Amino acid sequence: MLSSIGTMSAVKLEECRERIRTELDNVVDFWLKYSHDTVHGGFFNCIGQDGKVYDELKYVWLQGRQVWMYCRLYRTMDRFHRPEILEAAKAGGAFLRRFARVPSGTNDQWKSAFCLTRDGKAVKIQRTVFSECFYVMAMDELSRVTADKDMQLEAEQMMKQLIYWVQEDSSGLGRPQLPGDVPTNNMAVPMMLLCLVQQLTEGRGQEMVQKYQGLASWCVQQILQHVQRDGTAILENVSVEGAELPGCQGRLQNPGHALEAGWFLLQFSAERGDEGLQRMAIDKFLELPYQSGWDKDHGGLFYFLDVDNYCPTQLEWSMKLWWPHCEALIAFLMAYSQTKRPELLERFSQVYEYTFSHFPDTKKGEWFGYLTQEGKVALNFKGGPFKGFFHVPRCLYMCERILDDLLANKA
Amino acid sequence: MLSSIGTMSAVKLEECRERIRTELDNVVDFWLKYSHDTVHGGFFNCIGQDGKVYDELKYVWLQGRQVWMYCRLYRTMDRFHRPEILEAAKAGGAFLRRFARVPSGTNDQWKSAFCLTRDGKAVKIQRTVFSECFYVMAMDELSRVTADKDMQLEAEQMMKQLIYWVQEDSSGLGRPQLPGDVPTNNMAVPMMLLCLVQQLTEGRGQEMVQKYQGLASWCVQQILQHVQRDGTAILENVSVEGAELPGCQGRLQNPGHALEAGWFLLQFSAERGDEGLQRMAIDKFLELPYQSGWDKDHGGLFYFLDVDNYCPTQLEWSMKLWWPHCEALIAFLMAYSQTKRPELLERFSQVYEYTFSHFPDTKKGEWFGYLTQEGKVALNFKGGPFKGFFHVPRCLYMCERILDDLLANKA
Repeated sequence: MLSSIGTMSAVKLEECRERIRTELDNVVDFWLKYSHDTVHGGFFNCIGQDGKVYDELKYVWLQGRQVWMYCRLYRTMDRFHRPEILEAAKAGGAFLRRFARVPSGTNDQWKSAFCLTRDGKAVKIQRTVFSECFYVMAMDELSRVTADKDMQLEAEQMMKQLIYWVQEDSSGLGRPQLPGDVPTNNMAVPMMLLCLVQQLTEGRGQEMVQKYQGLASWCVQQILQHVQRDGTAILENVSVEGAELPGCQGRLQNPGHALEAGWFLLQFSAERGDEGLQRMAIDKFLELPYQSGWDKDHGGLFYFLDVDNYCPTQLEWSMKLWWPHCEALIAFLMAYSQTKRPELLERFSQVYEYTFSHFPDTKKGEWFGYLTQEGKVALNFKGGPFKGFFHVPRCLYMCERILDDLLANKA
Repeated sequence: MLSSIGTMSAVKLEECRERIRTELDNVVDFWLKYSHDTVHGGFFNCIGQDGKVYDELKYVWLQGRQVWMYCRLYRTMDRFHRPEILEAAKAGGAFLRRFARVPSGTNDQWKSAFCLTRDGKAVKIQRTVFSECFYVMAMDELSRVTADKDMQLEAEQMMKQLIYWVQEDSSGLGRPQLPGDVPTNNMAVPMMLLCLVQQLTEGRGQEMVQKYQGLASWCVQQILQHVQRDGTAILENVSVEGAELPGCQGRLQNPGHALEAGWFLLQFSAERGDEGLQRMAIDKFLELPYQSGWDKDHGGLFYFLDVDNYCPTQLEWSMKLWWPHCEALIAFLMAYSQTKRPELLERFSQVYEYTFSHFPDTKKGEWFGYLTQEGKVALNFKGGPFKGFFHVPRCLYMCERILDDLLANKA
């Protein structure tokens, strides 16, 4: 099966798997040790290089993601099927259920806060759907390990609310309707919903798959609208009709996001046996962002780019963030495992070398999240408002499982 | 008068003035040439390195600031008392009056949009008071050159609205009241209001000064609350009672902002003959941010710092932005001109050397706005969503005038 990679490469893949497995163990230990709030429940998110909490605010995206990740590890990997991990997930879930939802003021809708005080008071609400998305992810996965049907139902109810906001009427999100604010297909939204469809339906039988079939097709179609310029570029924002938008917003590229969408599509295409979609995912959502997004001078993936090579207006555009590299590792390894095309393993190998030589903190554990263009650590914390127990462990978990499959089928 | 700087320094100050005067001419020419929208009115803000418009959105902060700056130059500097500058200011003002104000949905209040399409349709409204502040600045200054009493009245009405939001009831800004979102004294607000008081009262007689006397005192007192840690640090956010706030928000330092507040206080103290306030401005708002904010390794002022030396969570914290350097130049030169203390001229000289060797684009004109920590250009545009015709020309204008005074009094 692994003929294309040859013996040398098989040895190298073994080394990769070993390194990835060790990293995952270390990263899980780091968060188990430093992030649990045993007084108020939930998790500390702002954790410095050495593990010290430097801010007590609790970010709902990250609370939900940490619950999800603990549950997923507990449920699917023997070595993490440990009571302390289950207990931590349940405590995080209880904190979310108790504090994250706040009345939105519109009809009977609930919004999820974006940020809470240590003891659960709402600090900020975003006018988007992402807090709710991670809430659904957390509740569904937690319901799987606790076999709590009410919780699963709660996840589905929030999902219904989400779909309504995205497809029917977004006024409940609280954004004023303004004449110049044209509705936009931002890639994050259909990506996130597709991810949730996969979460809610996984292993739950045909009825559930059918319930969300229409939504899944809609998500895929919305994601594919981001292939623009005669198939030569993935753009982050397009019109709801799938046309290019004017200005910086329309020209924006986010290579990490495109790569993440790529592996969501790969996973979906494998479930459905859709080879056309698989090809699209690889040729467009993996290859194009790699070609445009890889920094030929210093290595690593840029955070933002402008398709016409104007300078992006985001101050951090040239920085190297950990998460696009996590998404790239999953995407190229998954694509290789599905197709066995050697050039995809080459890409994985290149991203792997950069990632493992730049992001892990070999002294204090866990990964740095933010490097300069040249690869120097620019922000040294391990957890912050947007970096939690999610992208690093999800990447390591996914890659370890794919490598297990690849190496098991070698013989 | 200039004994403390000596003959050598007087020569150097002449050179500075010459360079600053030339820069100001060039910068004005750049914006006159590239930023005017002769079709829809108002100004293009997003202008690339070579002068090309890369996005047509119009940012209200920057529209207001450009109107103000044109009027100020036209009104107070002979060589800019040119019809084309007046016409540009009037056209910008007309665009703002026609399009910037949108109903806020609360009572009869108006909000000013943050961002407009090229033809004036509102794209985004911020839930803060700053768009309105720059609207007031623009209208008041424009009313001075056009002798338009209605416009002056309009500026004062918007000012009244602003004060109500800041001091009485902020619900009209549209932020939901959340239990964890404690009211905060953010330095930007009293700074901005003090700046507006000076704008509205300048040269308009005692009655006007008295009208805003209470507000001015309140602003000064609110600004002084940011002196924290037994007088050893300026913090960007404090509680409304003037106590330090917990977490990152409470520990945040923004050296450029503190320096800007410093020269606002210096100007105010000179008007009132308040030597205690002058001392406070210099010892706290100039000296402390310089001590903590100057990068001893690479030169230049950091954008954000944490008073306890944690890593700030802002991705751009270590970048060198043009505007803090503009504020520092004004602050140290003004402080020197008021006190003649040689160490303040030394500071000015140090900031001047860094600024003029890093920010001006000697090939294409105007200044770069965003450098890496090491001083490399990170974003090469001349205008963007937050960089317009304001900080650079205001700095050059202020410094030229102060240098004129200093050098005139040399004999």
